[in-house]
Amino acid sequence: MPAKLFDRIKAVRLIAFDIDGVMTDGGLFLTDSGEEIKRFNSLDGHGLKMLRATGVIPAIITGRTSRSVELRAKNLGIEHVFQGVEHKLDALRVLLERLNLPPEAAAFMGDDVVDLPPMQHAGLALTVPDAPEIVRERAHYVTARRGGHGAVREVCELLMAAQGTLDAQLAPYLQTENA
Amino acid sequence: MPAKLFDRIKAVRLIAFDIDGVMTDGGLFLTDSGEEIKRFNSLDGHGLKMLRATGVIPAIITGRTSRSVELRAKNLGIEHVFQGVEHKLDALRVLLERLNLPPEAAAFMGDDVVDLPPMQHAGLALTVPDAPEIVRERAHYVTARRGGHGAVREVCELLMAAQGTLDAQLAPYLQTENA
Amino acid sequence: MPAKLFDRIKAVRLIAFDIDGVMTDGGLFLTDSGEEIKRFNSLDGHGLKMLRATGVIPAIITGRTSRSVELRAKNLGIEHVFQGVEHKLDALRVLLERLNLPPEAAAFMGDDVVDLPPMQHAGLALTVPDAPEIVRERAHYVTARRGGHGAVREVCELLMAAQGTLDAQLAPYLQTENA
Amino acid sequence: MPAKLFDRIKAVRLIAFDIDGVMTDGGLFLTDSGEEIKRFNSLDGHGLKMLRATGVIPAIITGRTSRSVELRAKNLGIEHVFQGVEHKLDALRVLLERLNLPPEAAAFMGDDVVDLPPMQHAGLALTVPDAPEIVRERAHYVTARRGGHGAVREVCELLMAAQGTLDAQLAPYLQTENA
Repeated sequence: MPAKLFDRIKAVRLIAFDIDGVMTDGGLFLTDSGEEIKRFNSLDGHGLKMLRATGVIPAIITGRTSRSVELRAKNLGIEHVFQGVEHKLDALRVLLERLNLPPEAAAFMGDDVVDLPPMQHAGLALTVPDAPEIVRERAHYVTARRGGHGAVREVCELLMAAQGTLDAQLAPYLQTENA
Repeated sequence: MPAKLFDRIKAVRLIAFDIDGVMTDGGLFLTDSGEEIKRFNSLDGHGLKMLRATGVIPAIITGRTSRSVELRAKNLGIEHVFQGVEHKLDALRVLLERLNLPPEAAAFMGDDVVDLPPMQHAGLALTVPDAPEIVRERAHYVTARRGGHGAVREVCELLMAAQGTLDAQLAPYLQTENA
Repeated sequence: MPAKLFDRIKAVRLIAFDIDGVMTDGGLFLTDSGEEIKRFNSLDGHGLKMLRATGVIPAIITGRTSRSVELRAKNLGIEHVFQGVEHKLDALRVLLERLNLPPEAAAFMGDDVVDLPPMQHAGLALTVPDAPEIVRERAHYVTARRGGHGAVREVCELLMAAQGTLDAQLAPYLQTENA
Repeated sequence: MPAKLFDRIKAVRLIAFDIDGVMTDGGLFLTDSGEEIKRFNSLDGHGLKMLRATGVIPAIITGRTSRSVELRAKNLGIEHVFQGVEHKLDALRVLLERLNLPPEAAAFMGDDVVDLPPMQHAGLALTVPDAPEIVRERAHYVTARRGGHGAVREVCELLMAAQGTLDAQLAPYLQTENA
């Protein structure tokens, strides 16, 4: 990993995620009665729980609005949730001010052109392999895993590994019973 | 890109989409209570919004009928929606007359043999990689992305790029904050 | 195609399909309220409609029971539906007797070992690429497309092509408007 | 297959499965009304029924809680179901005591770090190809099929083959009618 990328990752205290295409594979399930269904991923969930335990603050900034996102955020203990956001950079700025953090302490993970302003403002810009080329070109890191299929988990482990917090998070699961 | 294909794409003022297999991956989810669920794609959605903003008119012409299509169309600002259509060419003709456009100004994107009549009538015929061979052979352009996984977004960008409107659509997302 | 396989396909007057893994990709969606959801495929649907129009009788023989199968069968005009069947060969025999057909006039398409008895009784045994090896070994034909992703459509076209009925089914979609 | 792995597999009398990522592909479907939907697999279901018929006891130990798991377990005749489990090793120990079995008689199949303690306690540790590297490294066997796409079926057949019970389970489906 290039030293500069490593430095960017190490500086992250806050990471904001887009939902559709990042925490999901971009699928929007619509029922005839107008209900929307989203497909999240269990590996992502545990990654976010571990990352949060290391002190990095996870957030959600999404253009659409759905109750399932609220429910998922609550389940994962994500406190900062911005839905129905037209200008995502504005939301990121509000969040940075609220947490009293500089842009370099923020990471943003998105999958579409509307995510570019906060990606370009944040110190670390992350995206997924299915994102349009123009988005991938402007990201510091493109995950190997696809959105909804472990891309967020990959990012959580990347941050924890670079910040030296991964081993402590994994330790409870690795101790042998007689140790 | 062959010059002839480029000319066909440049002439498009109206683009009509089939739903199943084009805006979805062909999956028809049925619940025991008889409700139908469709899986749309978020990248497609933003592509259609950008394309519509350039003045190209998006439409839906589908053989099946479901309320989720109505809801999705409303969400995307697609005004012209024909559902439960047995003869799709008839619907396309009605639409061309309504908009006072010649066939050369129309594109049709379908994924099955029932889509061939409007595809062959329109100036530009588009399809997806999972379509039967007989459909792919008769299309002017087969997307790289699969239906429900960005095929519609790819087409939207193709049209905007050929028509010289893509840069203006992307500009708001690319400006750096101090520019 | 081997001449013997061609003869088997030509003789088919009745084709019975398993549901899970054949008309779907094997996914059984369960909601917390106990509702089951199945994901069918739109290309399969039109294939079955065309095949039925050629006089070949489609049927469903499945071990599970769900209302969504009933609804899908009705939508496709499939008259012979056997659900909750423990011994599928018995159901196939009842069907052959009802229609006064010999086993050689039947095809059976399944994806698991419970489908082997009717597959081995029928003149033509069909399966999907995700079926266990023991099932694939005993099939006369393994589709290229996966269950729920066009496997049934592929079989419908295979039958119509071998029986010389495909062109007539496709003709209405291929005529140019001034022909 | 290495002799040591073969011995481990032969000794299994109890097999406990995680749900998300093992019996599913890790997808957590959430509706706006807060209902959760899981996608199970039909091939897995029949594998579990056959394995249970050979006398190996299947169990479920999962960290999340949902009614769909209860329904699926009932449908498959799985009697031992532990949901909402924070420490999976504790649950496995309770189960071993209840059944009066030593750890060597247990297999555990999981897909994430929280599954490592029971995997390392059990005589046989199984996982899926999408599991994090740290989990795959500590498994005795990684399935070729993905979770929710036949991984559990593969494990059921592996056990039955090594234990010499597979042929008897398949026999009813292989007999020709005049034999």
